[in-house]
Formats: sequence, C-alpha cells, structure tokens
Amino acid sequence: MKAAFLAIGDEIVGGLTTDTNSGFMAGELRALGVQPVAGFAVPDDEDAIVRTLRRALEEAELVVCTGGLGPTADDLTTACVARLAGRPMVRDEASAAHIRDIFASRGMEMPANNLKQADFPAGATVFPNPTGTAPGFVCPVDVDGRTRHVACFPGVPRETKRMVAESLLPWVAARNPGQRFASRTFSTFGLAESKLDELLVGAIDPAEARLAFRAAFPRVQVRVTVHGAPDDDLESRLDALESVVRERLGASIYAGGDEGMEETVGRMLRERGLTLALAESCTGGRIGDRVTDVPGSSAYFLLGVATYSNEAKTGVLGVSEQTIEKFGAVSAETAAEMAAGARRISGADLGLSTTGIAGPGGGTEDKPVGTVCIGLAWEGGTWSRRFTVPDRGREWIKGQTAQMALDSLRRWLIDPNGPK
Amino acid sequence: MKAAFLAIGDEIVGGLTTDTNSGFMAGELRALGVQPVAGFAVPDDEDAIVRTLRRALEEAELVVCTGGLGPTADDLTTACVARLAGRPMVRDEASAAHIRDIFASRGMEMPANNLKQADFPAGATVFPNPTGTAPGFVCPVDVDGRTRHVACFPGVPRETKRMVAESLLPWVAARNPGQRFASRTFSTFGLAESKLDELLVGAIDPAEARLAFRAAFPRVQVRVTVHGAPDDDLESRLDALESVVRERLGASIYAGGDEGMEETVGRMLRERGLTLALAESCTGGRIGDRVTDVPGSSAYFLLGVATYSNEAKTGVLGVSEQTIEKFGAVSAETAAEMAAGARRISGADLGLSTTGIAGPGGGTEDKPVGTVCIGLAWEGGTWSRRFTVPDRGREWIKGQTAQMALDSLRRWLIDPNGPK
Repeated sequence: MKAAFLAIGDEIVGGLTTDTNSGFMAGELRALGVQPVAGFAVPDDEDAIVRTLRRALEEAELVVCTGGLGPTADDLTTACVARLAGRPMVRDEASAAHIRDIFASRGMEMPANNLKQADFPAGATVFPNPTGTAPGFVCPVDVDGRTRHVACFPGVPRETKRMVAESLLPWVAARNPGQRFASRTFSTFGLAESKLDELLVGAIDPAEARLAFRAAFPRVQVRVTVHGAPDDDLESRLDALESVVRERLGASIYAGGDEGMEETVGRMLRERGLTLALAESCTGGRIGDRVTDVPGSSAYFLLGVATYSNEAKTGVLGVSEQTIEKFGAVSAETAAEMAAGARRISGADLGLSTTGIAGPGGGTEDKPVGTVCIGLAWEGGTWSRRFTVPDRGREWIKGQTAQMALDSLRRWLIDPNGPK
Repeated sequence: MKAAFLAIGDEIVGGLTTDTNSGFMAGELRALGVQPVAGFAVPDDEDAIVRTLRRALEEAELVVCTGGLGPTADDLTTACVARLAGRPMVRDEASAAHIRDIFASRGMEMPANNLKQADFPAGATVFPNPTGTAPGFVCPVDVDGRTRHVACFPGVPRETKRMVAESLLPWVAARNPGQRFASRTFSTFGLAESKLDELLVGAIDPAEARLAFRAAFPRVQVRVTVHGAPDDDLESRLDALESVVRERLGASIYAGGDEGMEETVGRMLRERGLTLALAESCTGGRIGDRVTDVPGSSAYFLLGVATYSNEAKTGVLGVSEQTIEKFGAVSAETAAEMAAGARRISGADLGLSTTGIAGPGGGTEDKPVGTVCIGLAWEGGTWSRRFTVPDRGREWIKGQTAQMALDSLRRWLIDPNGPK
C-alpha cells in the first residue's frame, strides 16, 4: 500500500506553521509496511484541495490529510472530499452529540457553525477525536474503477497523534496484511556518519536488513530496519543485528532509541549511587539544564556552577590564580581544578567541567574559537583534556561541548582508564 | 509572482526529517510580494522529481527546491532540472575550484564524485554556498512558451538560509517589482494570544494593515504587515502602526523582531553597566544557558549556580536552614535568599533566582507541580513571588519559569516598583 499526505492550510503553505503531522504519520505507517510516496502542502482553497487530492490518489491508495476540519468558513477539507468522491454530506448524530457535550462541559454556548464538524461524506467511517472537537474520517473514493481512500484528521498534532494511534493504524493494519516492518535505532556520538558507515561495511546483508543514518545534532542515529510477513519474528532478527552493530560500533553507541546522553549518564550514576557536580564556563549552564531535564535527577545531581568570570572560577570554585595566570582560563589545567572545585564545594562523588571559547569573539592564534577543555574529578584523581572543535557558530560549539563533556563522563563510568 | 516549493528526499517523505526550508523560504518571499501557492515533498526518484517539477510549474512562475544537491548517487535534483529544461549539463569551473579548496583546507582528499556538484544546466545562474560544498542555482524553464524558473538549494537549513538571503531574495526582488510587503514583528510575553487580540481591537484598520499572531513558546509574536507599490514609504506606515501597537500592549512587548528575552535583558544590563548572578533550582541551568547564548554576555554575567539540593542552597548560597525548614525549599522566602546569596558570593549588582516543582514528581496538595518561585536581589533590597503555572510537563514548566524569571528582571529594570 502506498500513501500520500496533504497538509491543508494557508499558514502551512505560507510558512507560518511547520507541518509535522505528515512526517509523523509517514513514520507510523511505514512500520505497517505502507510506503510513503509524496507529500503536499495546500492552501485553504477548494479547487486547489480537490485538484491535489486527485493527483495524490493517482500515486497512492491511501491519502491522509491534516487540517481544515474546523468550524469556520476557511475549513473546506470535508466538503472537498465529498465533492471528489461524488457523495452527499450526511450528519453523524453521535459526533453532533459529542460536540454539543464538549461545549456544555465548558459551560459555553455552542456556535452554530460547529455542527459542520459533524457532517461527513455518506459512507465515510468516522474516527473519534478524544482530545478535541473535530472528529476525523476515512472515505472511499472511486478512481478509475478502483476503490482508494482519503483519511482526514485535524491539524493539531496532539489531537491527531492520538487519533492515528487509536483509529488510523488499526484501520490500515486490517487492510494491509502484507509485509510488516520493524526497526531498531542506536544513538551514537563521537564518530562522523562516514566513519560509522565505514565501520559497518559488510556487517549487514542488504537483503536481510536496511541500514540508515540520521544526523540529529549532537548525535548520529543508526537505524536498522527489517521486514517480513506478519507472523515473522522480526524482534529476534533485530536482536541478532543489534549484536553485530554493537560489536562494530562499540562505545560510540550510548543509547538505544531516542534516549539522550543525559538520560544514559543519569541512569549510570543512579545505578552506582554516585553524585555529580558541574562547573561550566563556556557552556554556561547547558549541561545542568540537560541533566535536570531528566525526572528524578535530584537523586544524583547536587550542584552546577557556571563560572563565567575568572573571579568566579577562583572565588567560588577555588581555582588557583597562578593556574589561570600561567595556563589561562581556557586550559586543561584550569578545567581539572574547576572539576575538583565543584566536587569539593558540593561534596559530590564526581565533578565535570568545561571551559572554552564559544565565539564569535575571544579567539586568538594560540587558542582559536572552538578551543574547548573538559575536566573530570573523582576521589583521588582528575582527568582533563583540550580539544579543538570546528567553528560552526556559538550555538553549535556550546551544544557540541556539552555533549562531549557528558560523553567523557559516560566513558569514564564505563572504564576510568579508557579513551574519553 | 507565485512560488511553489519542493522538498526533495526520501527522509522527508518518510518522516525522518522535517522540512523547515520550504516554510522559511515562503515567509521570506512573501515579504517581497511573492505568493506561496503549494508545497511538495518528493522522494529521491528521477521520474517523481521531474513529474512534480512539471506540476509545480503549472501553478507557479518560480519553483524553489531544497535537497538532492549532494555528491552521491541519490542526489538527482540538478540532473532532473536539466532534463525538464531540455538543457545539457555544463561544468562551472569556479564552483569546481571552490569545492577542491574546501577539501584541501580540511586536509582531506576530494572524492571524485564531489565534482558532480559543480555541474549545472547550461544557462543556469550559480548561487554560491559560503557555508557548505554544494552551490545552488536558478535555471530558466520554458513552459508553453513562457519562461519560468526553478531555483535549487541544499537541504541543510543553515546553508540554505544564508543562500536565500544572499542570492535568492535579491534575484527575486529584481524580477518582481510588483506589490511590496513589509512587516514588523513584536515579541511579547505574559499575555495569551486572545488577550493580545482583545487589547488590539480597533487599533488597526484591516484595509491599512494585516495583524497576525504566532505562538512560539515561550513567547507570542505579533506581526503587522502592510503592502503597497514599490515606491511607497512602507517603513513610515509601519512606524505609525508600531506606535499604536506599543501603546496598546505596553510592557508585554519585550523586543522587536526575533530577539530573545536574554538579548533584551543583556542589552539593558550592558547599557546600565550592571552585572548579574543567577541562582537556579528547578530550571537547573537553563537561564544561564540562555544568558550565555548571547555573544559578549561575559560583560555582565558573572556566575550562575544551580543548587539542586537543599545542602547546595545552604552550603553554597548561604540560604538559612531555618528558612528552608519553615517555608520549604520552594517558597518565595527561599527564592529571595537564593537571589541575595548569588549576589553576595559573586559580587554582582543583581541576583535572580528560581525554585519550583517542575514535575512529574514532587508535587503536594499544598504545592502542586507547577508551583514556581522567582526572586530578585539588588543592593538594599529583594523581591520574590510564588506563582502557579499549568502542568504542561517538565520541559514546559522549566521553559516557562526561565522566561518568567528573565521577564521579572526585565520589568524590574524598567521600573523597580512596577508589576513583575
């Protein structure tokens, strides 16, 4: 089964809103063996919508639309599908009652035009909307003697995601008993896509599985996809492939799926009962922000200090003035003292630090923009190192340095004497 | 002039990557009076690309493509445009030299297939790519005796945004002397869209200008757009409209354009020669991260402390243990002491603090998830207040609280005795 997607709305065509619904649905449908073949963004214009629906149905058996199901005069989707399908509009009493109830429960009077949202092409199957007003639907359309389908959902991602899971996917699965797909994703950091590709040469038989890379800063994700008949044990095949991938990529893989490095590190700290303090300079609080994005991080995160001035480094963290004079604020020596200082003032088991030049200003010939230092401190020792990252802008340098710092901590936790 | 957009790539059609390029370009072109009419997402397939280009050119005089300009076998865009236009491919020596230089400067050998990126349809105008390898181009295409154009850019947003500004917009402006549009945008915080709408009732004559709202967490942007002939003084009209908008919306407006609250506050601190220290609990470093996103923030930002544990609050910031015992870590009293403590240990003129419950755990009946406190300290005084924000998840609460804190500081800087 092939699918095409229409995102309907002036605000999408005009660039005021980004369509994320189409991509979301394409990803979900791929897992059921549906092949996405095209996407369209269409204005709130009846002729444009009907014309585009017609073209989409030339390429795909299932066309999924989002947007244009509201109560106002701009909302044309349902009427367009009815016109294309040559079917009259019919009121669905259950939907009408649901819409009335929503307004009643808010203590509000229902504007008359909201009842338009309970009208569907005759013969359509209504998809309930548990989180919003407008129900969706799927309608058969005759295309040169074959029956194809147009499914319509609201434009609000939160409403549509739920309706896709509860209504669309089951509807598709019942009608598309063919091939099933299953994927497993690995998040990596530290190696470029081309290097990962090189390391995986010959690891996977293309007839067995497909390998895909996706750069999603600050990580690179590797995805392995298998397909087979509905009864095949796809998970076991993925288990075997996972072993191969992990053998080839080693510690570059920090997590399966979409887990962030801060979640990985948080889990490792919690499992070992270790606590952490941060001393950030160029990253300014970014690592602390990420670490505290994880619910329950108060179990292991005690303190983060962003020492943006030299006085803060010496006054708050106890970095020695001689160290800063001799080696500079941006040096491995200063990074080591910052990490040790954070550890000391907080009583944490581990200290992690960053100090560097994020740009655009501040660079010198000896220490250009992109010079970043990371430090680690534990009971009885420290480690620190100076790196040079490409100058891809302040935002990129901050993000990359934060990820490198978390990765250094992760690798230390795996093997204190290993590479970081 | 009408424009249509093609986003080319299997990863876009398949939902692995979201196309933000098309919407960005639509917005930029609208300001030049170009009307976006359609968008398309197309797989890496020659027939599909050519077919879609042909359809797009039925609807628009300018078709802008992103993606498919790389060096691999999947990259088909340029060849498809040449095929559609019936033109041979020709090597552009300047582009070839540029590509060779890029690899030389990285100390890397250039793979032979990168030279493909220097081949363009005969008669195309090459658009340089200052930040990446692949140049873009615009090529004339004859459609039923009329000359239309296809412009192509890389899929990498950072590269394309720059090429749009430096090459595409000037190219379009020279060819589209018709109606001009001009907009002015205001960033607001603290009032819902519906309230802003209410405050602006009757302020703007719809025949004179168009008003649009855009929710872009954590702000709401208000945009005023005027249009007129190329020689009209649109800027003066916008000046007059800006006065009206600012009169109605007051201090809810914190910046014109897309400036972030951290830039606004940074500017105010710098102008007054004031320095700042942060004491964050629930926001964990997010405010420090934002403040240090601004180049040159080291001129006013001295120190940020994320005191995630009570011991860190008392041990590092000097918050009194009795205060925490009596009022709790999440209290206006604690927030005030945290702000004063940050000020004291850093020597900064101002201290700003947050302490709250970001969830999902940690809430109680008395202090549910969403209870957040903000504190300010200056020489001779403090201010603090407890708020309750909706529980829209940990990420939302952190982001909203960080913005509220920066806004409190901003309002204090405007008027120490005014509402915060």
